[in-house]
Amino acid sequence: MRQIAVALVHYPVLDREGGIVTSAVTNLDVHDIARSALTYGLSAYYVIHPILAQRELVERIKSHWVEGSGGRRIPDRVAPLQLVRVLPSLSEAKTEFGSGGPVIVWTTGASLNQQSVCLSHGAASSLLHTSGPPVMILFGTGWGLPPQLHEGADACLASIPAAGPRGFNHLSVRAAAAIMFDRLLGEFSEGKRARPTG
Amino acid sequence: MRQIAVALVHYPVLDREGGIVTSAVTNLDVHDIARSALTYGLSAYYVIHPILAQRELVERIKSHWVEGSGGRRIPDRVAPLQLVRVLPSLSEAKTEFGSGGPVIVWTTGASLNQQSVCLSHGAASSLLHTSGPPVMILFGTGWGLPPQLHEGADACLASIPAAGPRGFNHLSVRAAAAIMFDRLLGEFSEGKRARPTG
Repeated sequence: MRQIAVALVHYPVLDREGGIVTSAVTNLDVHDIARSALTYGLSAYYVIHPILAQRELVERIKSHWVEGSGGRRIPDRVAPLQLVRVLPSLSEAKTEFGSGGPVIVWTTGASLNQQSVCLSHGAASSLLHTSGPPVMILFGTGWGLPPQLHEGADACLASIPAAGPRGFNHLSVRAAAAIMFDRLLGEFSEGKRARPTG
Repeated sequence: MRQIAVALVHYPVLDREGGIVTSAVTNLDVHDIARSALTYGLSAYYVIHPILAQRELVERIKSHWVEGSGGRRIPDRVAPLQLVRVLPSLSEAKTEFGSGGPVIVWTTGASLNQQSVCLSHGAASSLLHTSGPPVMILFGTGWGLPPQLHEGADACLASIPAAGPRGFNHLSVRAAAAIMFDRLLGEFSEGKRARPTG
């Protein structure tokens, strides 16, 4: 089993016109993705933001729950928030996560409809359950990750298509991350099914 | 395929000591679960709250996004928020959803570890893809649904177990709903796999 991290990117991300912007931190992104990451056995959750004041905000959220009164009131939040690491850039996150060694980067996005060039969730799950370099899975805030991050990655993960008849596929990043972790790492995932039981 | 609704219960729910409480509305519960519900083809999202001021808050959030400036700014939010229905009690939600006829109620919860008496996700998915009465899936806020709601339901759904080695299973209700919809209704769900393609 590989070491796996999730990274939530706030810059560069797309706005709704396709421009490159920096998004603001959302408190529940920190909590929800940390809780999902710990549930599915990820090793780290990188919150990537280039602006110091926004990084300090995330550090304050983290310390409130890890060392402060939040964690004393709700002890179940201590362990997930301990996974949170706050860094200014993806390259610094990769360096830290891989201890300077190689890190495989996978991107995600709702509009990755050219699925022939993206890893299927089954193939990705199987890969994660082999040994090899650590894998970092990138999610974009705002309107998602820009082309240059997809192009610079080792692979993209197939998007989670709309299952309903309405063609709507605008999951929150919190929901998309949870579903992706379940498909890649949950007990019904390809990698889990292919392993001997016990 | 059945008509399917999700209901988010704010009363009665458990607090962390196991007492029965009324929880406050969380804005992102309204948005995230509405977006996930529409993505997976659900027909309605019932926000159940006994307190008028809290119901009015949800109605204001809904109208901001369906008729107001929120929806003009981000048109993709109109359709999911249109699924939201705000009612004081589960019984009123059932009556409305079933137009007075029968409604099957399934409960969910992180601590439903007696999975032999709960529906597996595969079996539940297959059932949803048959014809029959509409199905309402209940999620609890706070520390989850109390025993009386589980006992009064037609079935409970197996909990989403911790996949990681750490035994942590405290997903947010937003993440749990997203994962459950994907397992029951997504393209890799049992019901979808069992259907002829095309």
